[in-house]
Amino acid sequence: MALEITRALLKDVRNLVQAQNNTQLADFFTDVHHADIAEVLDELSFDEAVYIIRLLDSETTSEVLMDVDDDVREKILEQLTDKEIAEEIEELDTDDAADVIAELPEDRKQEVMQQIEDKEHAKEIVELLRYDENSAGGLMAKEMVKVNENWNVLTCVKEMRVQAEEVTRVHSIYVIDDDGKLKGRLSLKDLLMASTRAKIADVYIPRVDSVNVHDSAEDVANVMRKYDLEAIPVVDELGVLVGRITIDDIVDVIKEEAEKDYQLAAGITQDVDSDDSILDLTKARLPWLFLGLLGGIGAFLIMGKFEHTFEENAVLFFFTPLIAAMAGNVGVQSSAIIVQGLANDDVKGSIKSRLIKEMLLALLNGVVLALFLFVFVFVYEQDLMKALAISVSLVVVIVVAGLIGTFVPLFLDKRGIDPAIATGPFITTSNDIFGILIYFLIAQLILGF
Amino acid sequence: MALEITRALLKDVRNLVQAQNNTQLADFFTDVHHADIAEVLDELSFDEAVYIIRLLDSETTSEVLMDVDDDVREKILEQLTDKEIAEEIEELDTDDAADVIAELPEDRKQEVMQQIEDKEHAKEIVELLRYDENSAGGLMAKEMVKVNENWNVLTCVKEMRVQAEEVTRVHSIYVIDDDGKLKGRLSLKDLLMASTRAKIADVYIPRVDSVNVHDSAEDVANVMRKYDLEAIPVVDELGVLVGRITIDDIVDVIKEEAEKDYQLAAGITQDVDSDDSILDLTKARLPWLFLGLLGGIGAFLIMGKFEHTFEENAVLFFFTPLIAAMAGNVGVQSSAIIVQGLANDDVKGSIKSRLIKEMLLALLNGVVLALFLFVFVFVYEQDLMKALAISVSLVVVIVVAGLIGTFVPLFLDKRGIDPAIATGPFITTSNDIFGILIYFLIAQLILGF
Repeated sequence: MALEITRALLKDVRNLVQAQNNTQLADFFTDVHHADIAEVLDELSFDEAVYIIRLLDSETTSEVLMDVDDDVREKILEQLTDKEIAEEIEELDTDDAADVIAELPEDRKQEVMQQIEDKEHAKEIVELLRYDENSAGGLMAKEMVKVNENWNVLTCVKEMRVQAEEVTRVHSIYVIDDDGKLKGRLSLKDLLMASTRAKIADVYIPRVDSVNVHDSAEDVANVMRKYDLEAIPVVDELGVLVGRITIDDIVDVIKEEAEKDYQLAAGITQDVDSDDSILDLTKARLPWLFLGLLGGIGAFLIMGKFEHTFEENAVLFFFTPLIAAMAGNVGVQSSAIIVQGLANDDVKGSIKSRLIKEMLLALLNGVVLALFLFVFVFVYEQDLMKALAISVSLVVVIVVAGLIGTFVPLFLDKRGIDPAIATGPFITTSNDIFGILIYFLIAQLILGF
Repeated sequence: MALEITRALLKDVRNLVQAQNNTQLADFFTDVHHADIAEVLDELSFDEAVYIIRLLDSETTSEVLMDVDDDVREKILEQLTDKEIAEEIEELDTDDAADVIAELPEDRKQEVMQQIEDKEHAKEIVELLRYDENSAGGLMAKEMVKVNENWNVLTCVKEMRVQAEEVTRVHSIYVIDDDGKLKGRLSLKDLLMASTRAKIADVYIPRVDSVNVHDSAEDVANVMRKYDLEAIPVVDELGVLVGRITIDDIVDVIKEEAEKDYQLAAGITQDVDSDDSILDLTKARLPWLFLGLLGGIGAFLIMGKFEHTFEENAVLFFFTPLIAAMAGNVGVQSSAIIVQGLANDDVKGSIKSRLIKEMLLALLNGVVLALFLFVFVFVYEQDLMKALAISVSLVVVIVVAGLIGTFVPLFLDKRGIDPAIATGPFITTSNDIFGILIYFLIAQLILGF
């Protein structure tokens, strides 16, 4: 079914481009799915990719353009003329078209828009460009099937056949009143089963889920996932139907959101993948490493303050990597659970009850681990007080780390900041510093140095 | 649109249950979406939840059961009789029904299955129970609309009306031959627009994506996402159409897969969320913390071996948390990128080329960070050789950590083990130990102790 992209296949394509053998190239790509063509282009050089884009018809290449990697699309668009881009835009649905236009440099946007022949299409794209890309407005397309509640089923089917030409997947037929306000919906199945003489007002379902054009992409994703919707209408503040969001776009939102949280937890900012350049990867990774470096310097400074006790309590210093690791691990665990809960919108109850629960949990984990460590240190060092000091402070460090890991994302979320930045290196680093400080202070208290 | 679940609302519901005021309770839940009812039940006690399940009709409650948290469903099923569960099963689509049956204790499965009156439904559920829950067979439903290629459009529409009664969303109509083999598809839109006299064989689209019943859930998700599909037919080894998977189930697979990888990276095994009990959360978190503890003990033993040099080189010991943190962070960063790439099926090329790229990347990051650290140590300690020893070993530690972080998930993946277990504590812990060992060995080489 899918095209298997092998080295041999890529070599064949390269040779055909080299030889400018357009007939065989066109043959090769006939009946290949645009997503597969995009994968081939991702592996070729930009010049080769542009050559193939120019060769194939714009109905195919417009879809291919939506499927290639962002950086490949950017390079291809740079090579194409305003007219050529406008031709691709004509073939795309309004939501994809707006995404492509939004990626162009400011000075080219207007040039390309003016070359679009279908003025209605151009107007709709301009409307979509107004919305934030992470809002319902930024996700929706103008293509949908809508009918007036005053029509009958026959008029509706006729009108629908015209509208449906433009719409890849119909899903639902939205019913509006004379002011364009969303009243309800009809499924294709309902329409197929209804008598042609029936009035729409009598057969439509007057209840329909909808989102506001300014709702966040994440909220739209949560609503569609919760209610298992495959398409959702978008309304403005007056309740007027302005667009439609389909599940395929939401699948990408859900995936990107989860990947972004994961990447942030792993200390990677920006949306990079393993094929990006070393420079892009460095930009995404170095800032967090630098934060870790500063944390390490903090730990160094704290340990320096306790240097005087080394001769007597060397063993304390040898356990600092253990303390730092435990503080970091517990912090990441507790923050990850809160961040996921917040993303799924199922963190309920007060911050206080969360903190109490995490404290009990960290206490339980901490005591189990500390008991083990106590036995190890006591057997290895034959020193009850040192074993006690190290294990008691481990428990306190774990509890504090758990509380910080729980509190920080909840606090950020309340402030309207994405809590995902709190997982990973940020929590690890601050917990390293707090952990080592608490550890030495408690040990000092118990051992009296 | 959605029900806002407030404390006041929960209190009202509780009072109505307490007073056994069935009329008002039923009124309250009329026209409330099953996903919202499920959220209410998640917040109630099990007894209250069971009371409401028994009160509402099984058409509603069967859907509610699919939406409540896993542990709530388990408790409710425990309370219901075999007959009551069978009634819920009758209302569910085969895929959901099979999931519920699979969750029952072995001895109840057969009892419940025998109580199902619709023998055809029961037979289909038994068929689905054969498949692994993470395979296409485990995701698919038997409900779909299929027509024979030898029919005409009119027969097809008639037959379809009968079949469509059973199918919530039609998506595509699958065309089969006399042996039940999948030949192609028809969309509802095509059918609505075709003449009633046309033969199916003349109007259907002879190309249709399909998956094999034994393909993994992750592969199905990748295919549906790549080709933007909303439903995909499932065939067996003979090409016979055996079921259909819809995008709403795949959305859950994609989300769970991404969440699982994220949780593993954060050191959480098992699928837990913030509302789970302290015991369940401990089970998910403690093993990884224990691993971290062992790593810390490893670091302790290594540092103990170098104790003799403390008097001269105390500063070396104070930087061990920094070295451990950097080794851990770099390892997590590089493994996260590989794990995500593998999950999205876009890690191509040889392991060797990946390792060379990561080495260059880590070298670049390492040199930048080491330069900063060199200046800090030199200024703070006024000792060129120590500054040199610490920064040179930092570079080597970062490069080795990056290589381990890249190699381990690729190696696990080649061995057929989920590479996600390699991110998080596993990489952090091994990188901590290797990092500190390499650090002291290089410092020893440079400073000669």
